[in-house]
Amino acid sequence: MKKIHDIILFHEEIKGEAFLKRLKGMKPLFICVIGNTETAKIPGISAAGRKPELTDYTPPADAELLLLGRCKCIEGVPVTPEGIPTPALITISALKLADIPALIVASGLRVKPHIPFLDLGGEPGGDIRGGEAVEKVEEIMQRAKIAGENISKIADYLVIGESIPGGTTTALGVLLSMGVNAKGKVSSSMPNNPHELKVKVVEDGLRAANVKIGALAKDPIKAISCIGDPMMPAFAGLILGAAQRVPILMAGGTQMGAILAIVKALDPSVLDNLAIGTTRWIIADKTSDLKGIIAQIWDIPILAADLNFSHSKFEGLRAYEKGVVKEGVGAGGAAIAAMVKSGGLITGKILLKEIERNYEKLVCQSDYQCSGK
Amino acid sequence: MKKIHDIILFHEEIKGEAFLKRLKGMKPLFICVIGNTETAKIPGISAAGRKPELTDYTPPADAELLLLGRCKCIEGVPVTPEGIPTPALITISALKLADIPALIVASGLRVKPHIPFLDLGGEPGGDIRGGEAVEKVEEIMQRAKIAGENISKIADYLVIGESIPGGTTTALGVLLSMGVNAKGKVSSSMPNNPHELKVKVVEDGLRAANVKIGALAKDPIKAISCIGDPMMPAFAGLILGAAQRVPILMAGGTQMGAILAIVKALDPSVLDNLAIGTTRWIIADKTSDLKGIIAQIWDIPILAADLNFSHSKFEGLRAYEKGVVKEGVGAGGAAIAAMVKSGGLITGKILLKEIERNYEKLVCQSDYQCSGK
Repeated sequence: MKKIHDIILFHEEIKGEAFLKRLKGMKPLFICVIGNTETAKIPGISAAGRKPELTDYTPPADAELLLLGRCKCIEGVPVTPEGIPTPALITISALKLADIPALIVASGLRVKPHIPFLDLGGEPGGDIRGGEAVEKVEEIMQRAKIAGENISKIADYLVIGESIPGGTTTALGVLLSMGVNAKGKVSSSMPNNPHELKVKVVEDGLRAANVKIGALAKDPIKAISCIGDPMMPAFAGLILGAAQRVPILMAGGTQMGAILAIVKALDPSVLDNLAIGTTRWIIADKTSDLKGIIAQIWDIPILAADLNFSHSKFEGLRAYEKGVVKEGVGAGGAAIAAMVKSGGLITGKILLKEIERNYEKLVCQSDYQCSGK
Repeated sequence: MKKIHDIILFHEEIKGEAFLKRLKGMKPLFICVIGNTETAKIPGISAAGRKPELTDYTPPADAELLLLGRCKCIEGVPVTPEGIPTPALITISALKLADIPALIVASGLRVKPHIPFLDLGGEPGGDIRGGEAVEKVEEIMQRAKIAGENISKIADYLVIGESIPGGTTTALGVLLSMGVNAKGKVSSSMPNNPHELKVKVVEDGLRAANVKIGALAKDPIKAISCIGDPMMPAFAGLILGAAQRVPILMAGGTQMGAILAIVKALDPSVLDNLAIGTTRWIIADKTSDLKGIIAQIWDIPILAADLNFSHSKFEGLRAYEKGVVKEGVGAGGAAIAAMVKSGGLITGKILLKEIERNYEKLVCQSDYQCSGK
């Protein structure tokens, strides 16, 4: 596949190349949207935390890591049950090397981070099996839109990522309710993607909400309300407010499919200003199908940072090559933005060096074992 | 006095002219820092609300006005006891005409606005007569500094204003405790500046905190903690974080003296990147002495928007010429930024037309009487 710098043009190559050209010489702002959903606490759904109940702390801890270079609300950094660290390690490394500023946007957060963050209000999302997932969706989206409009007047382009454990399951819910066939296609932070469990959770939720598959194709507000999560209206609202004026790199994996479907239903005029920026681990993943989701909605480019941790000195990073974690906290998009901003001087290899430095500092020196050094 | 566009070079003319030249062609971000202090509820201290207890609503209402063009947490707009409207009317008019984006930063807020805002945490400030005015000053300042660092990477320069009723009294407190003789020099939103009452309140506070006048010249953190307000660490922290990289127009009246003293004590290296932007009503005010305060701290330029409401068709605006309100919500600085951004096309007269349009829409159509049309 064609590459520019260490960026793989994975889908819609020509549009992707044009998109990258537009970003040349521009000053990006990285935004991370954080929130919580009780859906993450269903056993087996999320690996974004050592235990399901600890997933409450993952988004604020990721946010602290981005702005402070360390976590305050937890010891060490967020890890999977096996101790594999958060992809925010990749994000902070990319942002630091390329001197890219970051803004945290919060909606429906259970634990507040000890940093400045743009508060959009909202309550933590409910377990979608109940069919009542998010309150005040329109209000959150409207506030995000206002923020997006204002931000787009000073930033040249936005790279927007997210941290919300359980997010691929809620994404599956919104996609199915909007008529996008995403069964067996959403990604997972675990190597063994629990598709059956996710589908069952979503089907329970659709039943509880009395919503048929595809019934909400034109009603993304209701889709989020019934079966989504509070990150979604914030993320989509930022795009709706900013993308009239500036390009936006949607930094994430299959969750970006849900955001794209929401945005398309509300304002298709902004779609030409969007691309997805993700990691090689997502596009190489055999247990999910990002392209298969996106192609059903709108053919925006998919770009992937060519990161390779096979030869890392840390087992906790080599695990990424076995399909653990893969993406999150806008890791792939942040890496792409760093590569573009540096005109290719920041390569995947250079990034890995910085990631290993941060791993050593943050993972090895925290309470638990620095596996595999 | 020399003018550039409709901007009066009131103090440090040469530096002021150079400062304005630097801003030419640059993209500003307007920031309004909001917070509350119980000090505002001391009868006779503040006119930033119809009644003392309503001053809680003034900062969030001003913030809503800036981002939405209307208030949500109150009917109409904030007014003085005589019904004279908030200077945010000037600010929104300037920002709209010049298409300048706005960000709300909150610290120690009692009522949350229904808009996106950057939350720095903190509790509402106490009545300074108790000598324990603000909690967690260092934490608020540190968070603001991080926000300032990130913002300065995308905005070309910042215009920072504030909305905190009672703020000139807490400013007097911090100035006196830091050894700046500001007695009889701080401004007021009332034509009859209640200097005696303010001095008494501050002296009570200094006594309660067991702090002598001038004792905290080198300890601004303690000065704010004892006798300041929660807006101060937020405002000063933003400057400390951003002014290494970009110019900052401190948009306000005599309260900017307290901020300047705090910043100078913590990091004098940023002082060359600062100027004060205010209104003609402040520099013409015979009941206060902005220049007399600033000259004791550090001679940064003072610029004033040459606004004149004498011939406005609304009595509520003509009142500004009688010394009511005068400044606030960064009105003067926002007007200056609009004039600079438009290369002088936005004049004081054009601004007044837009202010009158907004007055008609927001004041005349709200519950209370549109006086004097």
